[in-house]
Amino acid sequence: MTSSPARTASESRPPITPQAAAQVLRDVRASAPLVQCLTNIVVANFTANVLLAAGAAPAMVDSPEEAGILAGVASAVLINLGTLTTAQEAGMRVAVAAADDAGVPWVLDPVAIGALPMRTKLAGDLAEQRPRVIRGNASEIAAIVGGMGGRGVDSTATPDDAAGAAAEVARRFGTVAAVSGALDLLTDGRRTVRIAAGNALLTKVTGVGCSLGALIAACSAVTDDALLASAAATSLVCVAGDVAAARTVGLGSFAVALLDAISTLDADAAAAAVVGA
Amino acid sequence: MTSSPARTASESRPPITPQAAAQVLRDVRASAPLVQCLTNIVVANFTANVLLAAGAAPAMVDSPEEAGILAGVASAVLINLGTLTTAQEAGMRVAVAAADDAGVPWVLDPVAIGALPMRTKLAGDLAEQRPRVIRGNASEIAAIVGGMGGRGVDSTATPDDAAGAAAEVARRFGTVAAVSGALDLLTDGRRTVRIAAGNALLTKVTGVGCSLGALIAACSAVTDDALLASAAATSLVCVAGDVAAARTVGLGSFAVALLDAISTLDADAAAAAVVGA
Amino acid sequence: MTSSPARTASESRPPITPQAAAQVLRDVRASAPLVQCLTNIVVANFTANVLLAAGAAPAMVDSPEEAGILAGVASAVLINLGTLTTAQEAGMRVAVAAADDAGVPWVLDPVAIGALPMRTKLAGDLAEQRPRVIRGNASEIAAIVGGMGGRGVDSTATPDDAAGAAAEVARRFGTVAAVSGALDLLTDGRRTVRIAAGNALLTKVTGVGCSLGALIAACSAVTDDALLASAAATSLVCVAGDVAAARTVGLGSFAVALLDAISTLDADAAAAAVVGA
Repeated sequence: MTSSPARTASESRPPITPQAAAQVLRDVRASAPLVQCLTNIVVANFTANVLLAAGAAPAMVDSPEEAGILAGVASAVLINLGTLTTAQEAGMRVAVAAADDAGVPWVLDPVAIGALPMRTKLAGDLAEQRPRVIRGNASEIAAIVGGMGGRGVDSTATPDDAAGAAAEVARRFGTVAAVSGALDLLTDGRRTVRIAAGNALLTKVTGVGCSLGALIAACSAVTDDALLASAAATSLVCVAGDVAAARTVGLGSFAVALLDAISTLDADAAAAAVVGA
Repeated sequence: MTSSPARTASESRPPITPQAAAQVLRDVRASAPLVQCLTNIVVANFTANVLLAAGAAPAMVDSPEEAGILAGVASAVLINLGTLTTAQEAGMRVAVAAADDAGVPWVLDPVAIGALPMRTKLAGDLAEQRPRVIRGNASEIAAIVGGMGGRGVDSTATPDDAAGAAAEVARRFGTVAAVSGALDLLTDGRRTVRIAAGNALLTKVTGVGCSLGALIAACSAVTDDALLASAAATSLVCVAGDVAAARTVGLGSFAVALLDAISTLDADAAAAAVVGA
Repeated sequence: MTSSPARTASESRPPITPQAAAQVLRDVRASAPLVQCLTNIVVANFTANVLLAAGAAPAMVDSPEEAGILAGVASAVLINLGTLTTAQEAGMRVAVAAADDAGVPWVLDPVAIGALPMRTKLAGDLAEQRPRVIRGNASEIAAIVGGMGGRGVDSTATPDDAAGAAAEVARRFGTVAAVSGALDLLTDGRRTVRIAAGNALLTKVTGVGCSLGALIAACSAVTDDALLASAAATSLVCVAGDVAAARTVGLGSFAVALLDAISTLDADAAAAAVVGA
């Protein structure tokens, strides 16, 4: 609540509210956006099922020969570096170029960058090309701007580290930085959203974070406000995680209950954890 | 019930009955056919589990170096174009040649052809090489003969479109066209089978259609009548889908219940939805 | 109970007891070892979830460009040949070299060797490079030393065949041979462990054996005694399988219950099936 230039800039966007996020989730169900995922082999199946559960339509096309053709007509594109290969890198570069040409929003998930040079270099290149959102754990977001890397897919950054890094990523690249994991913090460099839900089990099922990146892409297909899209998707996953945790015997049944919750939660309930900017 | 030439031709095959289809499902359980799947990374796990649940033995070998060796000794082969790469295309061509040399039945699933040229070209080439069955949604079956493509893996064709396209595919390529999805329609160009079961949840779990292609391959290993094989596999999945839907909280538990049902359904119950030619 | 040199050698190792195995499982939970998996596309997701359920941290990095970098800092490495490609083979050779340089333990799972020359050759080469453990079904273990191959991923060897082949593999390569499947038999060529648990459903869910290889790698990160690591991991999976079987409707719910059990079993209960050397 200041009169700084930052406030003026943020006022060019409507506030991020649970109601607005719920509308995004309803719009995804109503329009079934086609989300092209160039993602890793570990989570492709789970990601597709999460997208279907949220009402979107997944298409996992990542070859250099085909990725650009689809990206030009998709509703949104996800670029996830989890099991990067040289062929997939070529596909990603083609897809991003085609998405940009066609005005299709795309999301970058720089999995496990920092320690691994090939994907770190690619993430840096892609960040310069204006992804609508960059989603990662705190270490990955920090690594995008040269911060310390994590240990593979784990995050070792503190919340304060994360907030600073997220703001820097958002400002430098003109994007939304969506930090998820132990901490959920979303910012476009001016406005910041937190999510008042979520639990540690979400970090113990492979693909939850990666699927969140895909959901953010799906939500980006129905709103130009990338922070709102990120908030809606993150709240959905975190609230679903809380619902699932209450019905869970162990990690197997948690993953099943998570998909159940994503597919059945009322949009207002799913978006209720958004604590707006 | 006409005296047309078509009828005479169809009489060279026994009628497609629930009883005959049930025997196919029993024969799969008894002989555990080895089904080599050259398939996409999204559904490989689910497909393997569906095959195991039905009593078959999956083997996902698709490299150009190894695919042909296995295809020559497999019980059946599935070619699914869902995440086609140039290396996989080479593996597919080798596998089909080896399967043909050895008399091993193979099934083509032309996922998302139409919009994507590389896979559309390959599907056209492979269709000319006499797959025992071509399985797809209505748009994919239409696209094999130059019809409109779908939106990725979705089908946008009507039932009437589908019936015409299926008949054309079956006649032109001397194969069975197995349309599944919102509509289940199987034809060898003379006889037509429909399935009196199935529900929309089956289209909301990734890999159900792709796994059906693998099951058709498994069934093709135990009968020379490809329409009967297609009918048995499709009825199994659709009936299992109905059983699962009755026990389902959401899409996560539906997928689990579907595998449960495939693995536990009595063959007669599983085949009961066949409405014969 | 002889006074042969073999006995003297085995006495340089503590006995394999349920108590020692339970401590290994507790140490995995306490230290969350980073297990790099170069594995097949069919089981990558399930393997990651099994590792998470046991308290380890999975990282599926297998490209030639990145595999060696991670292997040098991982806690353990799994090499699984299930869907071998030429690129992955290059990644595996780099990873093994880096793991050896850094003293990182690695485990070889020679899936479906015997019938398929490319992977059989690679398995032979890698076996010479001193994997801490070679895990496979009886046919795969036999094929490592030139025995008969199986039918894809199935085992056709008898228990007596398996015991002889396992002892030969262990002695020739100075490793632990871990035979799992219908038979669970673990040996370092001097000591032999059996597992008094497990059931046939474990062979009907894809990826259980492959995930066991990853768990053996995780356990190898916390003990130098590779036979103890193998015993702890195998007992965990087999006991979890028995727990899961008691709660199972069919193969879908069995896989879910298996993950539930792996994530919730007390270490002493999980290790209780170890019948020590």
